[in-house]
Amino acid sequence: MTLLKTHKNFEGKTQFWEHSAHTTKTQMKFSTFVPSGAINGCLIWLSGLTCNEENFITKAGAQAHLSSLGIMVICPDTSPRGLTLPLEHAADDFGSGASFYVNATTEGYKDHYQMMDYIALEIYDLVQEQFSVPKNKISICGHSMGGHGALIIGLREPQKFCAISAFAPIVHPTVVPWGKKALLGYLGEDLSTWAMNDATELVLKGHKHSQEILIDQGTADPFLEKQLLTEHFKEACKTSGQQVKVNLREGYDHSYYFISTFIKSHLEFHSRFY
Amino acid sequence: MTLLKTHKNFEGKTQFWEHSAHTTKTQMKFSTFVPSGAINGCLIWLSGLTCNEENFITKAGAQAHLSSLGIMVICPDTSPRGLTLPLEHAADDFGSGASFYVNATTEGYKDHYQMMDYIALEIYDLVQEQFSVPKNKISICGHSMGGHGALIIGLREPQKFCAISAFAPIVHPTVVPWGKKALLGYLGEDLSTWAMNDATELVLKGHKHSQEILIDQGTADPFLEKQLLTEHFKEACKTSGQQVKVNLREGYDHSYYFISTFIKSHLEFHSRFY
Repeated sequence: MTLLKTHKNFEGKTQFWEHSAHTTKTQMKFSTFVPSGAINGCLIWLSGLTCNEENFITKAGAQAHLSSLGIMVICPDTSPRGLTLPLEHAADDFGSGASFYVNATTEGYKDHYQMMDYIALEIYDLVQEQFSVPKNKISICGHSMGGHGALIIGLREPQKFCAISAFAPIVHPTVVPWGKKALLGYLGEDLSTWAMNDATELVLKGHKHSQEILIDQGTADPFLEKQLLTEHFKEACKTSGQQVKVNLREGYDHSYYFISTFIKSHLEFHSRFY
Repeated sequence: MTLLKTHKNFEGKTQFWEHSAHTTKTQMKFSTFVPSGAINGCLIWLSGLTCNEENFITKAGAQAHLSSLGIMVICPDTSPRGLTLPLEHAADDFGSGASFYVNATTEGYKDHYQMMDYIALEIYDLVQEQFSVPKNKISICGHSMGGHGALIIGLREPQKFCAISAFAPIVHPTVVPWGKKALLGYLGEDLSTWAMNDATELVLKGHKHSQEILIDQGTADPFLEKQLLTEHFKEACKTSGQQVKVNLREGYDHSYYFISTFIKSHLEFHSRFY
């Protein structure tokens, strides 16, 4: 694990790292904020399409609250980098910067795009080993494609993550353009594997988290109707008995200006479970 | 004035604009945050080398505090754009993105790099006319080269700006490499004009602001010893009787992580004078 940059920030440290990841078989980058005092818990933050390890840590304004609540955050990159797989760099919504946090099974991608394992195994272990975070104080959150990632990883491994939340998540990828393109590219045509990577389908299959899931969604989000479909997840949770709190935020869009406005309330939510 | 982007943010609006500037004779961009309620005052923020109208508004985490204090901010770009003047794009510390907020007198630059007028006349008028900010509630702040800009503009026009503060400012440009290169390029070899664009020299010449000037400076700032020289300004203020408060921040560097940590205290400082 190589330290690339370090900045004192709200008495703690915002840092950028690189390591050789065994799950993706690539060099992977991530950023962290570690508060100056005791670490009460660690949030794994998953970013959205086109993002990398920098977006959240530079734009969310989270460190003020992470510092006062004593929370560490780790922000992994959104895909492996430095590869030249088929169509990997052809569009913003597939390949580089667009992993969808699944374990790929298609030719080429299966060798590196093991992003669910990267998050749920490798990053999960890393925060315990390198930052001494207790195993039962790790939670997960994300935005858009990363909100999808947080939901599917948290619902598939509910015992590993003490809380789940999301901003403007893609909740039903198997029925929307972004999701269908990505799942076809990473998983091929077997629809049964698609459902295991779809938060709405997982909940309908009986996957549950013991705690309430928190979601914030802007009503002026241009992707709400076609790609996000928040209501599908809310309905599925109602059907299956999963507790969920969906805050519809009047006039807010899909940007980090939306996230920065409500990140404090998400961090306070997570801190209740550490 | 054309609205390029608008985002709801902490109940107010973060927006990006473009206008045809009569002082620079170019199209200029700036960003704003306007709180949802009454505007108690307006801060003009000047960014540093290589920055543009986006850096502060995306990375400083200021909107949370601007919203609660009822402060508007306007962040102009750091130079004219779209030109091809001699050496304008040859280096990070001169020309594009590096105006040093002076009114240039050298060939080519004198036609467009009128950045002191752009800030002190054009932006100053614009916030009154377009955003209904009362004239006596406009203050100025900046970072690095922008801290230099805030100091020289505020000291030369003390009646126009009700408060001045700076993060890691270049306080004595006439004696440091960045400053000497820029002042030579924009003002030529007449050293008397240089002094009028140097905060330390202005204070030594008797220019004053009626209120205390606030400066925050990180002790781990890699530019402190060679380019910033905070102590020179502090000494000059002592000599001339200008009130100044310099906060040396142990371990902090030159980045927006430093600014984000202390922006709340600067905004609280400015709000005392609105």
